[in-house]
Amino acid sequence: MDSLRYQIWRQLDIEARPGHTMSFANRALIVAILVSVAAVVLETEPTIRSGAPMLFITLEQFFGWLFVTEYLARLWSAGERKEYAGLIGRCRYALTPVALIDLVAVTPFLLAPFVDSVDGTAFYVLRLMRLFRVLTLARTGPFTTAARQIWHGIVDRRYELAFSSLIALAMMIVAATLLYVAERDVQPEAFGSIPRAMWWAIATLTTVGYGDVYPATTIGKILAGLVALSGIGLVAMPAGILASALSTAYQERKARRGRDEAAAGPGPESERHQSGLD
Amino acid sequence: MDSLRYQIWRQLDIEARPGHTMSFANRALIVAILVSVAAVVLETEPTIRSGAPMLFITLEQFFGWLFVTEYLARLWSAGERKEYAGLIGRCRYALTPVALIDLVAVTPFLLAPFVDSVDGTAFYVLRLMRLFRVLTLARTGPFTTAARQIWHGIVDRRYELAFSSLIALAMMIVAATLLYVAERDVQPEAFGSIPRAMWWAIATLTTVGYGDVYPATTIGKILAGLVALSGIGLVAMPAGILASALSTAYQERKARRGRDEAAAGPGPESERHQSGLD
Amino acid sequence: MDSLRYQIWRQLDIEARPGHTMSFANRALIVAILVSVAAVVLETEPTIRSGAPMLFITLEQFFGWLFVTEYLARLWSAGERKEYAGLIGRCRYALTPVALIDLVAVTPFLLAPFVDSVDGTAFYVLRLMRLFRVLTLARTGPFTTAARQIWHGIVDRRYELAFSSLIALAMMIVAATLLYVAERDVQPEAFGSIPRAMWWAIATLTTVGYGDVYPATTIGKILAGLVALSGIGLVAMPAGILASALSTAYQERKARRGRDEAAAGPGPESERHQSGLD
Amino acid sequence: MDSLRYQIWRQLDIEARPGHTMSFANRALIVAILVSVAAVVLETEPTIRSGAPMLFITLEQFFGWLFVTEYLARLWSAGERKEYAGLIGRCRYALTPVALIDLVAVTPFLLAPFVDSVDGTAFYVLRLMRLFRVLTLARTGPFTTAARQIWHGIVDRRYELAFSSLIALAMMIVAATLLYVAERDVQPEAFGSIPRAMWWAIATLTTVGYGDVYPATTIGKILAGLVALSGIGLVAMPAGILASALSTAYQERKARRGRDEAAAGPGPESERHQSGLD
Repeated sequence: MDSLRYQIWRQLDIEARPGHTMSFANRALIVAILVSVAAVVLETEPTIRSGAPMLFITLEQFFGWLFVTEYLARLWSAGERKEYAGLIGRCRYALTPVALIDLVAVTPFLLAPFVDSVDGTAFYVLRLMRLFRVLTLARTGPFTTAARQIWHGIVDRRYELAFSSLIALAMMIVAATLLYVAERDVQPEAFGSIPRAMWWAIATLTTVGYGDVYPATTIGKILAGLVALSGIGLVAMPAGILASALSTAYQERKARRGRDEAAAGPGPESERHQSGLD
Repeated sequence: MDSLRYQIWRQLDIEARPGHTMSFANRALIVAILVSVAAVVLETEPTIRSGAPMLFITLEQFFGWLFVTEYLARLWSAGERKEYAGLIGRCRYALTPVALIDLVAVTPFLLAPFVDSVDGTAFYVLRLMRLFRVLTLARTGPFTTAARQIWHGIVDRRYELAFSSLIALAMMIVAATLLYVAERDVQPEAFGSIPRAMWWAIATLTTVGYGDVYPATTIGKILAGLVALSGIGLVAMPAGILASALSTAYQERKARRGRDEAAAGPGPESERHQSGLD
Repeated sequence: MDSLRYQIWRQLDIEARPGHTMSFANRALIVAILVSVAAVVLETEPTIRSGAPMLFITLEQFFGWLFVTEYLARLWSAGERKEYAGLIGRCRYALTPVALIDLVAVTPFLLAPFVDSVDGTAFYVLRLMRLFRVLTLARTGPFTTAARQIWHGIVDRRYELAFSSLIALAMMIVAATLLYVAERDVQPEAFGSIPRAMWWAIATLTTVGYGDVYPATTIGKILAGLVALSGIGLVAMPAGILASALSTAYQERKARRGRDEAAAGPGPESERHQSGLD
Repeated sequence: MDSLRYQIWRQLDIEARPGHTMSFANRALIVAILVSVAAVVLETEPTIRSGAPMLFITLEQFFGWLFVTEYLARLWSAGERKEYAGLIGRCRYALTPVALIDLVAVTPFLLAPFVDSVDGTAFYVLRLMRLFRVLTLARTGPFTTAARQIWHGIVDRRYELAFSSLIALAMMIVAATLLYVAERDVQPEAFGSIPRAMWWAIATLTTVGYGDVYPATTIGKILAGLVALSGIGLVAMPAGILASALSTAYQERKARRGRDEAAAGPGPESERHQSGLD
């Protein structure tokens, strides 16, 4: 009995395996989550659902019970770790962030029978929260190193990113205010207030440019042109900061690795180790 | 009495506190400015204002008097510093750039009763100048280091940024001229003159692309396609320059910090200090 | 006879020439491929084809037989290399990836007489596969070094690029779901399901913004605005990673070249060699 | 007499002054060119021209004769340099690229009386060639260092930029072909041939997205979505290459300058000189 629990624990707990390689069960669960998310996405399209209504109901039942079973198996096998042994240990496990995410992701399926099927569309969409479980399962491996590096780059330059975002926000308010003053009499529907003009400002400064609203007056077009030209710089700034942060983080990681190797095999070898960076 | 003035000065003057941490009063004032700006923005939307007309009038009165009080308190407590003591010192303080910005931001509220309420929309918008006060209040701390670094990066490459901006401007004139020649007979409204075609050129080269104007003739489409393809490079150039400037500035700052530490604890330690960069 | 085969082999086989410079025949073939691709592209436009119908038929016949002849000449002259000598050697050559690409690119021309001319448009388009032959011919020279460097940069950061792409995909699903919930009752045609809303999400997050679909409700516009603003960061992230990867790869290549030179002429010269990087 | 010619030469010839600072005459001429270009641009707009018809005629006459006078003054004063002395020397000067650009820029004004005023719009636009004269005048100073650095960055990575541009071109052909196959029956006007679909492909891959043409079928939208998502990477690639090139060029320039200083004041000072980079 203990041996089975140990085997299940070894398959399910990400930190159970040495070297943090991903177990077969966790790999399979990631695939199952992605397939179930794709099923939920496709199910919302009437022309697809009407083509195979039973398929989607079956898939939903299958994945729902699979994830419920998985949750219970994780809860049970968590007892393999000293800190989660016993009933109180299980409660402690159930309150860890990862276990809470697992529980939240499984709730919509369990509550589905009690929700009115007509108004329930918004509710069914909650099943997409399963997406976040992929992140909790992919906590190890090279993928996570990449994620950590991107995250490290963002944190390292958080003040610069925040400052450039604030400049962008101020620019957005100024742009919306300018167009509001210039166009509010001509196009009250689109520029009749600063919040309305903000929709135009966002579409312009992100260079999306739907074209549903744009200035009609000459002065409005001149102001909009100036705003669009400044927008290039604003869009470029966070990109530049992020690029610079990632580049620095990567080079330092490589340099540190090179130094660590140099420290292991010292002396005249150090130069050769530095070549190992390339 | 003097003790109260000292306490207020300590709370209001950004340079009063050692280590340049932000006082509670200044933190609260930044929040108040942001809330009052949000109120002005939302007030312009008729559907929101009509929902709670008294709320916006009350908020405006509250923030107006708050900022007037703050201005007077700053003027009074400035006397704590030797250079601003006495009546002449206060006048000298009132003429500093920061104090002038504070005064300008408070003016629209004080003049509001004398402005005709019907034509006054543009006037009310002046209250948004309060936004600039946030910058004068956030003059210290890590945020400002980030701002200075971005600014340093821009100044360091000012000639390259100016050159690439000029190339972009020349490109814009050339693009507008080409489309003016190609399309002026077919679409006189949109391409009947170079300034009119400039509206299209800006929308295209910034990749906003509203879609209100676009070439109709084959030759116009070919020229527009070539302009759009070149536009990628133009948009990329300032971004590339800025990214490169920020990266260089950051690495040099880190390297200098590393060297400063190495200079403090010299000798064989220097290598370990260099690892401190990571 | 053998001498002619050797001459043809020297002209056709990219690896036949020392220093991997490109032979006259291969240069001419690249031009021929580009011209024939341009002919296929232009031929699809009725107004151009009707202007010179015989020209396109003649061009197609000319290039078709040229590439068939080239394929046979490559097959025959491959015998110059020991491993492809004899009939079995030729079969071995015909199964190399490059030879298979050559064969596939020549097939549409050979099969054309057997395809119904009315429904054959999609078939004719297959002739554009000739484009890929350019890549197999441009396997050497500085162009390829550049390609390899870009490729190396992408591979080196594959996990970061994959991670940021996955974040972008998750963002796209979240964005489409949000707008589906907000707008599905108002615009069932455009936002009636998550896959439909995905069309809007892609157009917005890539900042293309055709403007055929956009939110109509206030809540939809607010959500769309937030999505568009986040989209800047997503678009910036792979660009930043790629820029950082290319920069690192390039600097390391230069540094390695500098070290190699330093290794050749050692001692106090090393510093001067380092200047050789510039 | 000779003294006057020397003074004019000192004012006009960019290479006449030590340290290559810009003379007053050349600064004034750059301003004159920019004003005359602005006048030509504004003159094309009927609502502006009809407001002050005499102003534009007067401006054009003034700038026209100014630039003719300048050209003659340059030709005459070029005799101060040995290689351009005498009649044959003047001819040699007149055939230098800079003098030819000056001549070409002045021609439209001289030929204007002989051109039919009704059909002459395209001809008048040629006066905008004066824009290029700004580049010949701004050949020195920090501006030119920036231009040279950008140019150096582009040349240094020319193969990578060419390769990524070719990939973008191939992507464009593939995208246009895919949409042509998917949409040609539904929207023959917009996707009836590959060249027509190319207009859509350019608008999409540059993320301009006018919205005048977009796929209507489901398969077309899926293909267009995939093309738009790949387009992000394509747009990012040249930007990344350029950013990386500029960063490298700049750092090397700084490092070289630091080394040059270190070479001048050698020994234990070198480290302090390196700090001088920051």
